[in-house]
Amino acid sequence: MIRLRKEDVENLALGAAVLGTGGGGDPYIGKLMAIQMLERGKDIVLVNPDDVDDDAFIVAVAGMGTPTVLIEKIPNGKEAIKALKTLESYFGRRVDYVICIEAGGINSTIPLVAAAERGIPVPDGDGMGRAFPELQMVTFHLFGVKATPMSMADEKGNGVLLDTIDNYWAERIARVVTIKFGGTAWIAIYPMSGKDYKRATVRNTLTKAIGIGEAITNSKKYGKNPLDAILDASGGYLLFIGKIVDVDRKNVGGFARGEAIIEGLDDFKGSKLVIKFQNENLVAIRDGEVIASVPDLITVLDKDTAKPITTERLRYGLRVAVIGIPCDPKWRTEEGLKVVGPKYFGYNIDYVPIEILHKR
Amino acid sequence: MIRLRKEDVENLALGAAVLGTGGGGDPYIGKLMAIQMLERGKDIVLVNPDDVDDDAFIVAVAGMGTPTVLIEKIPNGKEAIKALKTLESYFGRRVDYVICIEAGGINSTIPLVAAAERGIPVPDGDGMGRAFPELQMVTFHLFGVKATPMSMADEKGNGVLLDTIDNYWAERIARVVTIKFGGTAWIAIYPMSGKDYKRATVRNTLTKAIGIGEAITNSKKYGKNPLDAILDASGGYLLFIGKIVDVDRKNVGGFARGEAIIEGLDDFKGSKLVIKFQNENLVAIRDGEVIASVPDLITVLDKDTAKPITTERLRYGLRVAVIGIPCDPKWRTEEGLKVVGPKYFGYNIDYVPIEILHKR
Repeated sequence: MIRLRKEDVENLALGAAVLGTGGGGDPYIGKLMAIQMLERGKDIVLVNPDDVDDDAFIVAVAGMGTPTVLIEKIPNGKEAIKALKTLESYFGRRVDYVICIEAGGINSTIPLVAAAERGIPVPDGDGMGRAFPELQMVTFHLFGVKATPMSMADEKGNGVLLDTIDNYWAERIARVVTIKFGGTAWIAIYPMSGKDYKRATVRNTLTKAIGIGEAITNSKKYGKNPLDAILDASGGYLLFIGKIVDVDRKNVGGFARGEAIIEGLDDFKGSKLVIKFQNENLVAIRDGEVIASVPDLITVLDKDTAKPITTERLRYGLRVAVIGIPCDPKWRTEEGLKVVGPKYFGYNIDYVPIEILHKR
Repeated sequence: MIRLRKEDVENLALGAAVLGTGGGGDPYIGKLMAIQMLERGKDIVLVNPDDVDDDAFIVAVAGMGTPTVLIEKIPNGKEAIKALKTLESYFGRRVDYVICIEAGGINSTIPLVAAAERGIPVPDGDGMGRAFPELQMVTFHLFGVKATPMSMADEKGNGVLLDTIDNYWAERIARVVTIKFGGTAWIAIYPMSGKDYKRATVRNTLTKAIGIGEAITNSKKYGKNPLDAILDASGGYLLFIGKIVDVDRKNVGGFARGEAIIEGLDDFKGSKLVIKFQNENLVAIRDGEVIASVPDLITVLDKDTAKPITTERLRYGLRVAVIGIPCDPKWRTEEGLKVVGPKYFGYNIDYVPIEILHKR
């Protein structure tokens, strides 16, 4: 059991933005919300998934929609709690644990806010080990857990409860509702037992995020190279260093889709990197060759501070370092790649683990 | 209390298609479903709204979406009952009465099917006295009744429960869900007390529909002019007789929108009538002059048989009679016209009651 201090929350938000691979919403907003909770005297407590009872009632809480819109509509966490309450009254049972659906920006901290408000702990394991854009893209889905009944709330007071035949239908319907809500929804989803959670979760992702955040913070403090520190803490690879020369981004179907073009600097001079994204970074192509792809993590960092840059903040002129981190092995199975491999996102690419691509 | 026979159901479907003003879905499908119920030995019973207790629990059941799609996906009534059950378990209470949201094609009979399945009666009064395309366009809305909690079901097994801040938000969200469902949804909506129902309903619309249907059926039997019989039974006016020379119809935003152009025959030779519709007929313009508009009823009938023709069946070459029927006085109030007057539908027309327009 770990009781998080303010600096832990700051590091978590920072590290989760690295794991968030450009998506999951702005980490600063999530951080502010969680720190507000601590300042109100509430406890934010992480527990080991092994400590969760088999018959515990577990629900994931998250923000859904276009991160670009989220910047304009700063949330206060009440909507997430409303979504949670709706699901509780549907089941006639209070949740024992709130979990993170993904380890990305705001969705790594929103569950902490909801759990702190309730006075319950958050188990240290999410449903992705990173961030992904669609609801069925979680390890829970791979293990047969249903996304629904799920509940949605907006900041105006509208609520929607879904019960769909499969997780793809949950995604389809929730997406249009999110668009109608104005681009962002707050959801309570994947109600499950402790037993299912322990089987299906990607473990230790919140403490991993805190560790990555600490690496960035401490390197600054002790004058070390922050990029090296992140690569050490995350087990990642340096893919590119350069200057962003073009960003093309559109809100399409409730997602921020587009690509960024980066011209090489330093050791990468003369090279060009293209990153394709849909909320999250999906594929990195250097001089026409794929050097990383989903489900492995591709993250853009500020070249000097090594702070992660979300896709909605990519802009011309930024000097960046691009890193790649191996994903959880659960995603590298045939079933996992069917759900989140490059082909699902429309790229005719055979997935090759980043470790192998990097050796080439 | 009236126990409907097969011929009553047939007449109801026919008459409701007249009151449906071109919308509400194909009356033949609704008729088939209700007759199947009778053949299975179930009772379809109408009661006077005055017999409904103040604290009775009442829910409207309906089909929602583009009637054009409904023809392709013939329903069996199970989805409507599923939607009803979802709402019942939300409230933890079984409904006492199922009501009709509108007196249009399929939505005048679907509640009979659901009620017969349950062994409960249907009060003789709907929420429009006609058909309208959007969820907030009911007299219940005028009397402050909330559309939500409402429940939606599709034929695949997906379900959605809405709880919105107002009835316009219910319409907005339910519409995109309906589109995602594939164009048609089955809904249980406007849960209310018997007291609210009695205040807000348009009374005797089902028996009125049966009467109009009988007028058509009997005129055929006794060799009378069926058009005159309808006008007598409905209190309507003959607006036009002619041949359809053009129909422009698109599925836009989950509605069938468009217009029909009719060239005059007989007494109307040399004249031209344009009818604008959105699922239902909205405005009739003869030689550039508005001769009827919402909320009054505009219905297109077959010139010879006087059988009503829904907007999705309008086509080139049909010889038709167009009639207009005064709407319920509840719609002629300032608040009523704000909700269903021509301006709401985007026509810059001041509403003038059809009786006055007809005298001109």
